[in-house]
Amino acid sequence: MTTVDLNSDLGESFGAWPMGDDDAMIGIATSANVACGFHAGDPDIMRNTVRLAKARGVSIGAHPGYHDLNGFGRRPVPGLTAAEIENLVAYQIGALQAVAALEGHRVTHVKAHGALSNVGCVDDMTARAIAAAIKAVDRDLVFVVLPNTALARAGEALGLRLANEVFADRAYDDDAALVSRSQPGAVLHDPALIAQRVVRMVQDRAVVSVSGKTIKVAVDTVCIHGDTRGAVDIARSVRAALEAEGITLAPFARG
Amino acid sequence: MTTVDLNSDLGESFGAWPMGDDDAMIGIATSANVACGFHAGDPDIMRNTVRLAKARGVSIGAHPGYHDLNGFGRRPVPGLTAAEIENLVAYQIGALQAVAALEGHRVTHVKAHGALSNVGCVDDMTARAIAAAIKAVDRDLVFVVLPNTALARAGEALGLRLANEVFADRAYDDDAALVSRSQPGAVLHDPALIAQRVVRMVQDRAVVSVSGKTIKVAVDTVCIHGDTRGAVDIARSVRAALEAEGITLAPFARG
Amino acid sequence: MTTVDLNSDLGESFGAWPMGDDDAMIGIATSANVACGFHAGDPDIMRNTVRLAKARGVSIGAHPGYHDLNGFGRRPVPGLTAAEIENLVAYQIGALQAVAALEGHRVTHVKAHGALSNVGCVDDMTARAIAAAIKAVDRDLVFVVLPNTALARAGEALGLRLANEVFADRAYDDDAALVSRSQPGAVLHDPALIAQRVVRMVQDRAVVSVSGKTIKVAVDTVCIHGDTRGAVDIARSVRAALEAEGITLAPFARG
Amino acid sequence: MTTVDLNSDLGESFGAWPMGDDDAMIGIATSANVACGFHAGDPDIMRNTVRLAKARGVSIGAHPGYHDLNGFGRRPVPGLTAAEIENLVAYQIGALQAVAALEGHRVTHVKAHGALSNVGCVDDMTARAIAAAIKAVDRDLVFVVLPNTALARAGEALGLRLANEVFADRAYDDDAALVSRSQPGAVLHDPALIAQRVVRMVQDRAVVSVSGKTIKVAVDTVCIHGDTRGAVDIARSVRAALEAEGITLAPFARG
Repeated sequence: MTTVDLNSDLGESFGAWPMGDDDAMIGIATSANVACGFHAGDPDIMRNTVRLAKARGVSIGAHPGYHDLNGFGRRPVPGLTAAEIENLVAYQIGALQAVAALEGHRVTHVKAHGALSNVGCVDDMTARAIAAAIKAVDRDLVFVVLPNTALARAGEALGLRLANEVFADRAYDDDAALVSRSQPGAVLHDPALIAQRVVRMVQDRAVVSVSGKTIKVAVDTVCIHGDTRGAVDIARSVRAALEAEGITLAPFARG
Repeated sequence: MTTVDLNSDLGESFGAWPMGDDDAMIGIATSANVACGFHAGDPDIMRNTVRLAKARGVSIGAHPGYHDLNGFGRRPVPGLTAAEIENLVAYQIGALQAVAALEGHRVTHVKAHGALSNVGCVDDMTARAIAAAIKAVDRDLVFVVLPNTALARAGEALGLRLANEVFADRAYDDDAALVSRSQPGAVLHDPALIAQRVVRMVQDRAVVSVSGKTIKVAVDTVCIHGDTRGAVDIARSVRAALEAEGITLAPFARG
Repeated sequence: MTTVDLNSDLGESFGAWPMGDDDAMIGIATSANVACGFHAGDPDIMRNTVRLAKARGVSIGAHPGYHDLNGFGRRPVPGLTAAEIENLVAYQIGALQAVAALEGHRVTHVKAHGALSNVGCVDDMTARAIAAAIKAVDRDLVFVVLPNTALARAGEALGLRLANEVFADRAYDDDAALVSRSQPGAVLHDPALIAQRVVRMVQDRAVVSVSGKTIKVAVDTVCIHGDTRGAVDIARSVRAALEAEGITLAPFARG
Repeated sequence: MTTVDLNSDLGESFGAWPMGDDDAMIGIATSANVACGFHAGDPDIMRNTVRLAKARGVSIGAHPGYHDLNGFGRRPVPGLTAAEIENLVAYQIGALQAVAALEGHRVTHVKAHGALSNVGCVDDMTARAIAAAIKAVDRDLVFVVLPNTALARAGEALGLRLANEVFADRAYDDDAALVSRSQPGAVLHDPALIAQRVVRMVQDRAVVSVSGKTIKVAVDTVCIHGDTRGAVDIARSVRAALEAEGITLAPFARG
């Protein structure tokens, strides 16, 4: 029986400012990546997100980012040392673990956010620091990574359990890397087409590149979004298509 | 054999701004209350403080405060709900636990900082929220409290292990409460006199009030400071006097 | 000919987080109170708001608040000195003046935000500090105040030009003070009723209290909101009703 | 008669954290570059710095930096647009202008801080944005620049009045550029030697490079520091040596 997880970035509100339709997404996703206060989120939003997730049987993970509220963690922070990256990642994981404890829930995974993830995909020092922080805090945490990146290699080298991620709405090149958002066609918008693609990814454990090449990749979790126009519709469409194919939707780890 | 702990607020630097003589104090105190980034400290300073503490056999505790970098956590934040206080306390404890894990050290206690402590001493809702957060995160954490306060009552009601604290350099009134800093004589400055007072407090498990009354109180830990003029000298003097009396200085809990 | 201003709080987004429908409101209001980065807004949002206002002939004012991004400036900050209040108010006014200069627009008024306004309405020290900051920065700035408050008295005492404000959607008591939001009926929701009330306020220069009493008040500007459900509809309704009565809508000061 | 200005970065404390010996430096420098709250400083510290400067006849300038309290503005913020740089620079200048008005003082210059200056020296877009912000806010503000940099070119292109700066304690290469701090000998430490060098720079309007080459440069102001060990002694030594040579020390612009 085929099983897959649907992960989504949630808890990205801040103070008085809402972001995303978490109520809708929590019923679609099986794992929630929870912002931890450095690029989005705050202790109150974190707790509300955890409560919502626990009530719906959704697993939670820390979604650490650079310390950059002004820029939503989308800008690299140059010049950080390995220790400084370890520190900010560990800090954020621990903060979520403790807030989760208030609701009797448990953090089961970690996925880097925004620029921290982008840099981590290509920079070995950053990737190793993220993985080292995860391992130090709790070696049973699952590390959500894009396959074939520095993040995946670092996680593997440290013996972390990995969850390999594909993107529902992004085009892939022939190296199974994401086509840059600056390229035309990088982001897909048609819910039906996206749903169909995801079913094939999950059934075949492969992605089809923009040139039509089929590339085998591990697929443990599919990233779905709830923050762009139509994103929730796409997410619903993906979930429905997977269920229609008899694919089991379940978190890769239980909290 | 008489034993007592000496606790001190450390890791109160922020970014490029140093505060306090942590190197000196880490050799005098037996427990360090580590700022967690909301009123002082940041992930890097937290880790350096933890490393220093571990190397010197000093136990560490979280020192959570209101979210107020501008005011160093010295101003109350009115209107927070019990849940919001739980959230900010839990967040900060968890953050330190995870940073401590990077150094293989372990958080053993929690002591509220500044205005959060002042409000917690007199406001039952705040006190219960702090205690509830500690219990949810790790029920084995020791809660450092001023005896006879709402904090002490809340900790006791929730079954937390308490460490009762006296202040080396503060005058007490006849109810064993601290004389307000706005009163003359509220803060003592003479190292020899302070050291002598502390020895008596520890040996007699009692404080002598400004009117000369002797009041029995539990004394598990003595708060010493490293951030004011001459504070380090006072701390050294206190430690030397206790050792000269054969009193064992040791953390109330081992990390 | 009767003339009145419609003022609205705009530029309350922060970083990646939008708030309010500024595009709609800028076509309805004649004066915009622009958040200055302490409780909402940031330099980029401030500039975009100024550009929008200038393009539509809308006057701009600074909307200073306490330094409290987490709480949106809705919580009092106890213990600030008069000088500290002057400093935070002056800082925010100057910041907006300079950002406005980038768009060739000019700040013409100041209105305190949230808890700073609430405290200023009843606390003379706070009110005088706000007024003193305005006067020091530019004595020609119009000070938007609720009539019969400490803010109005402080502005008058310092010789500032005042713009007296009424609220479109709030109930008044027999002292012409706003009924507390915690009371039933404190906030009105029916667009037609609100529009009719505002027309009477402007034509009669009076408010009708919850008990039916008519109280004369100066009415230079009507506060309209764009951040709650239906608020934009109410604002449109108010504007249409005023125009239908032949009342001229115009800023109390031109930038 | 030869005249020169001594400029120093002041007001770099933050909240409860002091930095630098401003009291000493205010008696040595003739112009103060005041941090504006984005990388250091806050409204209260800004005002205190302005008051100190006014009392001693010291001119004040805005010292805008990237929005980076955690990193003291020493880290570049990649990806900012020209408009975003204009906005953060204008915001900070205006904030200081308004705080200065509270003390009846006036901002006369602008000097970019830390990474914003470093990037501005080599990146035309950043340099032009800084210069454009200055011009929009007040075209009479003096722009303090390192000669032969993108900052100097941008200021000249926009018709700003420039103050060319040399560094008392830094080595120069044969292009009159500062030797990178990572190179040995980049920073000088001997007060007597530094003082002698500065006298020659000011008298000859030239710097002598590490290879011994004499390079003509405009010298309107000498940058002296008060934040490193011995920096105040060096600053005093520089001032004394200039005075001993009969060189007049005076701000390049009067507030």
